Amino acid sequence: MVSGEPEISDRRRLRGARSRQAITRRAVDIASVDGLDGLSFGRLADDLSISKAGIQTLFRTKKELQIATVETARAAFIDAVARPAQQAQAGLARVRALLGNWFAYAEQPLFPGGCFWSATLPEFDSHPGEVRDALTQQRREWLAVIAAELDQAVDNGEIAPLDTELAAFEIQAVLDSTNLALRLGDTGGVKRAWRIIDKLLTSPEA
Amino acid sequence: MVSGEPEISDRRRLRGARSRQAITRRAVDIASVDGLDGLSFGRLADDLSISKAGIQTLFRTKKELQIATVETARAAFIDAVARPAQQAQAGLARVRALLGNWFAYAEQPLFPGGCFWSATLPEFDSHPGEVRDALTQQRREWLAVIAAELDQAVDNGEIAPLDTELAAFEIQAVLDSTNLALRLGDTGGVKRAWRIIDKLLTSPEA
Repeated sequence: MVSGEPEISDRRRLRGARSRQAITRRAVDIASVDGLDGLSFGRLADDLSISKAGIQTLFRTKKELQIATVETARAAFIDAVARPAQQAQAGLARVRALLGNWFAYAEQPLFPGGCFWSATLPEFDSHPGEVRDALTQQRREWLAVIAAELDQAVDNGEIAPLDTELAAFEIQAVLDSTNLALRLGDTGGVKRAWRIIDKLLTSPEA
Repeated sequence: MVSGEPEISDRRRLRGARSRQAITRRAVDIASVDGLDGLSFGRLADDLSISKAGIQTLFRTKKELQIATVETARAAFIDAVARPAQQAQAGLARVRALLGNWFAYAEQPLFPGGCFWSATLPEFDSHPGEVRDALTQQRREWLAVIAAELDQAVDNGEIAPLDTELAAFEIQAVLDSTNLALRLGDTGGVKRAWRIIDKLLTSPEA
């Protein structure tokens, strides 16, 4: 059965990848509520009814599990927020689609504790290391997406010229605060956020 | 020695209050870095070289310790940020003094992990209960102070009329994001925050 060995090995790898995916997806949900330090092999094993030893074999250390969780959160965020907005026209329409998707992501919410980064960046901001670096890099990429679409909106003549990097920072500040407000039961949070963002994205002077 | 007993009891109470103060002040520092769930009787006992049993006698439960820590953070914040600003004239000058004191509090910083509420509100926002209620109430009071001074600034004719509750929300969003930026080593964070706030607090039209 020499010829069969690669196939078995492939199947094992596939099964391993599926297990990793199922475990880290559950880990994202936990971290959104209790933070990345709220993760443990034992808790995930209980939640998913699999062996703790099996999880340990896949991730080895808590830090490796945290990094994998952060990557899975990114993929889920792209699927829910960033990719669907690509159907909107580049510029103002896409900015509004990105933010609309973001509010749905935080309000419905995709993860039980709301925005993953609004929860984990404050948790890790005083803890230099790989986890903080990964979270910070992801936040930076997201801000760059917003700023690039704002640049396009200015080029299109859809909004008045503005410092788009500064505007992306302001918008993200409002998003994080709106996520907090939603968690605290403030149902008017999204409407308030749009008021602020609409004011920021004024039409060009005639 | 019946007459001496009340005196001894007073001394004991005073000593107890001093111990509580010393313990919760250390707890505020820990929570600013590791969150309120990072607190434990054992860790505080080690840090302060006192007995774990003694701390347990004073606070009984972790939740009681967390609530007392939140109260101590509030008192330290008032001493460092709110009270000194009372010397400035009510209105725009006091808003600027409050925010200047806030930036010093976050940048220097008063607590090693930066702003206490920027760290602990995201930690507790998905955990209803007394700790979250206390943190939320304190945040609400601070926003009310900002909004009241903005109202005064409008009445004084120092800034253009604006929705001061909304403006206080926007300012706090910028403060939380600036605290995060400072923790991540962004030394230009305070300058950027002032740019945004100065834009928000425009002079009234002539």
